[in-house]
Amino acid sequence: MGKGEFERIEAYFAPLAAGFTGALGLLDDAAILSPGPDQSVVVTTDTIVEGVHYIGDESPDLIARKLLRVNLSDLASMGAVPYAYTLNVALPHSVSDDWLEAFVAGLQADQREFAVHLAGGDSVSTRGPTVLTVTMYGLLPRGAEVRRSGAAAGDWVFVSGTLGDGALGLKVAAGELALDDERDSAELADRYRLPRPRTALGVRLRGVASAMADISDGFLADLGHIVEASGVGATVDMADIPLSRPAAALIETDPKWWETVLSGGDDYELVFTCGDRSAIERVSIETGMALTCVGRIDSEAGVVVRDRDGQRVRFAKSGYRHN
Amino acid sequence: MGKGEFERIEAYFAPLAAGFTGALGLLDDAAILSPGPDQSVVVTTDTIVEGVHYIGDESPDLIARKLLRVNLSDLASMGAVPYAYTLNVALPHSVSDDWLEAFVAGLQADQREFAVHLAGGDSVSTRGPTVLTVTMYGLLPRGAEVRRSGAAAGDWVFVSGTLGDGALGLKVAAGELALDDERDSAELADRYRLPRPRTALGVRLRGVASAMADISDGFLADLGHIVEASGVGATVDMADIPLSRPAAALIETDPKWWETVLSGGDDYELVFTCGDRSAIERVSIETGMALTCVGRIDSEAGVVVRDRDGQRVRFAKSGYRHN
Repeated sequence: MGKGEFERIEAYFAPLAAGFTGALGLLDDAAILSPGPDQSVVVTTDTIVEGVHYIGDESPDLIARKLLRVNLSDLASMGAVPYAYTLNVALPHSVSDDWLEAFVAGLQADQREFAVHLAGGDSVSTRGPTVLTVTMYGLLPRGAEVRRSGAAAGDWVFVSGTLGDGALGLKVAAGELALDDERDSAELADRYRLPRPRTALGVRLRGVASAMADISDGFLADLGHIVEASGVGATVDMADIPLSRPAAALIETDPKWWETVLSGGDDYELVFTCGDRSAIERVSIETGMALTCVGRIDSEAGVVVRDRDGQRVRFAKSGYRHN
Repeated sequence: MGKGEFERIEAYFAPLAAGFTGALGLLDDAAILSPGPDQSVVVTTDTIVEGVHYIGDESPDLIARKLLRVNLSDLASMGAVPYAYTLNVALPHSVSDDWLEAFVAGLQADQREFAVHLAGGDSVSTRGPTVLTVTMYGLLPRGAEVRRSGAAAGDWVFVSGTLGDGALGLKVAAGELALDDERDSAELADRYRLPRPRTALGVRLRGVASAMADISDGFLADLGHIVEASGVGATVDMADIPLSRPAAALIETDPKWWETVLSGGDDYELVFTCGDRSAIERVSIETGMALTCVGRIDSEAGVVVRDRDGQRVRFAKSGYRHN
């Protein structure tokens, strides 16, 4: 049995808002966001449900941090600087104070890491599974947001980091995949459990990338979102897809893993387009992020994937839809 | 069985965002709120759970409208103009398309009535009860928000409308209370089911009210929030509490109903303080809202209630805490 709602807010959530004056100490009817005179507020929100989006026996601090980070990744894809967030929790009576303490510790850790604060929220009880919602607010100069719809034929397609680690990590975490080297398994599982939102990179790509999305649904799906919104198409070369050492080793043993890498989701890297390859090279050097050109935008609708020999590859699952 | 998440968003939620360019057609990773150069964004959020906050057999359009309205009431209490909202739904597979259509029709109706639009959200599945979250955004000039903390000794305490109808209406709706006149029962139940957030009044009280809250937890509790935040106290005269005809008739038959009226919650009227009674009279005439002086702020902590004879009255339940 846990504390009552009022005590919960006071004990667990008010300290998360202590550094943010706009939260008004969580004591008023609403919170105040104060963008600068020429700034827009970027809003993104995600809900996760115990038993659907997480199993329930994960470490509560990792659940908290992943929930913040998937939202931070959305802000990054628009080029916004993280600013504040609101949190809605529907908790069954079975949730213990220990669980909540660990959950809040996770929020606290990532508040420090990403310089965001709790602005407000709601805490209610439920007779069903835990349902957690984070709504994240970012700031950017008015009109500077990077949309999905700006890609033009001739632009190059880039991705940050390596692809597929999140989706392969999910299989490791679920016990469906084990690599020869235990450390490789642990590395992939960690990529799934704790995404690295590309916050600084997203901000740096404002005014540089013509279109951008974060890779949450899967690389092919999210590039698909970009080309659809932009009214263009893209051709991608598998030979250029950046892979981690464990992912490359898996594909070496069985090329079936390509599908997981390209369609599996949960990468939380950025996919973006730009007509100027040297501009992206400069961003890569400045930010220290690996940015790889993996294809090119053309005028024919859809995303085409080519293998090493230039042959078109088809995948059964597009990864386009997810819950 | 309902549609998939993607189809749901396209069929039901995208039309709610059609009139709001900042929603980016619900096709991007985030939405854009664009306050004016000297405006703040006021944020409030509420989560409701089937089986906890509503029974489940209510008309879905009323569930939708009430959820929007309790948030609109919070904006009103800060003096903010409604602007946009985000919606997070966790839906069991048993939710039918009919239910969703009616739910969306309710949102649509109140979007028109209160000039707000859907900016974004998330739609996920759950194995438990339906969980619904609305986060509402309002605008106001920077620094113009009416806080709970501004009440000073000597200020008068005012309320809008009549008190207790929501709490009495809940008892009618739950079948615990029936009035002699069926129309009276229906009137009270309607006040419970469909609050009237005092949006225009809240905006008009900016710069006039020294402190303000909406009455959601109960009049005594919400006035208690104000005096606590302001470091003052208040004395309230029961004789001055504005009552609807059905509420007055009930109290006439049994004074026990005073407790429900003063502590019961769900009024969604505004309680506010001001040192200038004539200023509030002018606001009442301009807005056409009944605004009643019910007491006065003093320097002794706590809220004291006096009966007709000036005797102090105590209530068992403060209504201070709710889920």
